[in-house]
Amino acid sequence: MALIVQKYGGSSVADAERIKSVARRIAQAKAKGEQVVVVASAMGDTTDELIKLAYQVTQQPSERELDVLLSTGEIVSSTLLAMALKSMGYEALSLTGAQAGIQTDATYSRARILKVESERVVIELDKGNIVIVAGFQGITDEMDITTLGRGGSDVTAVALAASLGAEVCQLYTDVDGVYTADPHLVPEAQKLAEIGYDEMLEMASYGAGVVHPRAVELGELFNIPILVASSFTQNPGTLIHGGASMEVRNKVRGIAHDLDVAKIMVVGVPDRPGISAAIFQPLARAGISIDTIVQNASINNITDLTFTVAKSNLARAMEVVEPIAKSIGARECVGNSRMGKVSIIGTGMQNTPGYAARMFGALSEQGINIQLITTSEIRITCIINDTEVKDAVHALHRAFELETPE
Amino acid sequence: MALIVQKYGGSSVADAERIKSVARRIAQAKAKGEQVVVVASAMGDTTDELIKLAYQVTQQPSERELDVLLSTGEIVSSTLLAMALKSMGYEALSLTGAQAGIQTDATYSRARILKVESERVVIELDKGNIVIVAGFQGITDEMDITTLGRGGSDVTAVALAASLGAEVCQLYTDVDGVYTADPHLVPEAQKLAEIGYDEMLEMASYGAGVVHPRAVELGELFNIPILVASSFTQNPGTLIHGGASMEVRNKVRGIAHDLDVAKIMVVGVPDRPGISAAIFQPLARAGISIDTIVQNASINNITDLTFTVAKSNLARAMEVVEPIAKSIGARECVGNSRMGKVSIIGTGMQNTPGYAARMFGALSEQGINIQLITTSEIRITCIINDTEVKDAVHALHRAFELETPE
Repeated sequence: MALIVQKYGGSSVADAERIKSVARRIAQAKAKGEQVVVVASAMGDTTDELIKLAYQVTQQPSERELDVLLSTGEIVSSTLLAMALKSMGYEALSLTGAQAGIQTDATYSRARILKVESERVVIELDKGNIVIVAGFQGITDEMDITTLGRGGSDVTAVALAASLGAEVCQLYTDVDGVYTADPHLVPEAQKLAEIGYDEMLEMASYGAGVVHPRAVELGELFNIPILVASSFTQNPGTLIHGGASMEVRNKVRGIAHDLDVAKIMVVGVPDRPGISAAIFQPLARAGISIDTIVQNASINNITDLTFTVAKSNLARAMEVVEPIAKSIGARECVGNSRMGKVSIIGTGMQNTPGYAARMFGALSEQGINIQLITTSEIRITCIINDTEVKDAVHALHRAFELETPE
Repeated sequence: MALIVQKYGGSSVADAERIKSVARRIAQAKAKGEQVVVVASAMGDTTDELIKLAYQVTQQPSERELDVLLSTGEIVSSTLLAMALKSMGYEALSLTGAQAGIQTDATYSRARILKVESERVVIELDKGNIVIVAGFQGITDEMDITTLGRGGSDVTAVALAASLGAEVCQLYTDVDGVYTADPHLVPEAQKLAEIGYDEMLEMASYGAGVVHPRAVELGELFNIPILVASSFTQNPGTLIHGGASMEVRNKVRGIAHDLDVAKIMVVGVPDRPGISAAIFQPLARAGISIDTIVQNASINNITDLTFTVAKSNLARAMEVVEPIAKSIGARECVGNSRMGKVSIIGTGMQNTPGYAARMFGALSEQGINIQLITTSEIRITCIINDTEVKDAVHALHRAFELETPE
């Protein structure tokens, strides 16, 4: 019997009516004779409300306690889904992350799944149950409750699918798939019927927040096809998998963008070994994620080092970097929070010249100044002013002819 | 180092401000150099709101799922208390019922604690932590989450106190102790400084809902002194223990009453062996708790059998009993939901004549008709019309001179 894992996002289970509606969708899958595991996110704004409650009690909530607190949100929606299914005559039960064997490290608020001990899930499936697992959470080997970070239910779902050898992992949310660009920005953006893991990973990491990048990584690692679709429609969605055809892949697949970018330039740095470590190790210790790093070729042994962080981290990063910049003899240290990022993504770019030139040309035609450029094998990213991101996405969408259906 | 267990009721932790205030009380206990375990109830009306949510999803929520759902209420308040304490500079952490080793049977919604595997609690106490345990919940040996029923956090607290060998179990609530009668009904009721387990058990079971009877039973079994006090004042409260002095005990200690009483009379029953079993076994199977049972002496082999149930169970109990009454040849079967109960309680009544006569006299002076009488060694209960309960409590409070401080 085929086994599928479905995940329903917070807006899909935001109230009792939507929970009943999702239960009917789950029942349809079960009625096809499939074994069904469902991962539930917390209802609507529950997570934000719990965080607000914690901050009413203290401005510095303990991370361990915050994780226990937040984990209740997904437990609530899981039990309600199980109740709804049982009342419809289906055998169903909910499991917390701990009960479902989601074992993680002890990095509270952004724990990593170490393994899934899915015996209990298998036992319940074999009894004929639809198993509803509370997403976003796990348990350490000390039996402490952890959470996986924003979007963590996606990770739970793919990890369970991998552990159970599921045929597919279906992520149901409030958007109906992955688009060539953000449809809010580009109305003529096209939904992709399929996309490769690598491409999706670049899309996900570079601002197209439909699927959590760690979920895509896990899917690739265990070769689990991931369907992204809407829980509000019957539209087919986008399949993320490893076997996209060569022809479809031989082009830019999508434009990602991100407005949450701040830039720090350390200007006039004497270029000697150990300078980068001197700057980035303290930032890592302060828990600040660095995104793009660009170092110019040095002239007269003097170079500029530029990197980007999330806007919310700019002030803290500047506090860390300014004294270091001074101590290593840099001329100055400049922060700018008004940055954005646009990327073109597609495995077709590998070893194929011309994409970068076309991208820079399209941006230049709009009069958009490119401040930094970084690339991967299948992605080219430009850092620009945040006010120009919208125009840039439009221009790139046109330049790579993404408005025509595949 | 002395170890104390404190339990805070729902109204004591109803919002962020009250949680901070309770945290300060806990800190005071810790500052005295004591090891402190705290059991938290769910915030304010959380439990009722979760039940409402479940009923929005289905009119017949699965008991297993309902228990998982309700257990989140106490987890939330526990983590918030732990956060508050940590932000005040105290070492603290929260544990769910499962993490604290509260092992129960699998009777969902009213599980019984089988044992407390308190190793984790001990480890955390030894590290110097204040340990906050989510009350009202436990886990079966199948790792399924259970709840202990209304007032279950009292049971959690005393069970933990027993398991840990605590010096005292302090139950903090919104009333400041056990009174000679319900102070809402009898303004001149006196707070008792102390009361014996047996007396408290009769008080608790017979309508004085300050402490859960199972908590009192457990306290007696393991000889754990239980203090009942208000979390809103510094008043001393009432100590429930085994060593009340003889002199104090030699009188009626309190008047309990209960308005949630319905009566079923099976009239004209042929008196032969097996009749009671024929009636009460089906009621037990239907999950209906019987309170008082009275069978009159039979005349000409015909007897009347009367018993009481909670008002909410009357209709269902009648459905069960009516066909049985017919089949055993009873003349008729009459239900009445307008009943109430008053009790006088005190170990001093043991082997001491005159208490019953004084009770019946006091009621008769008020023109109150006694419909049923039941007694234990330390209690006499009269079933009367519910409209007469208030007057009866007043009359008995006066008759046994409870308005004068001890």
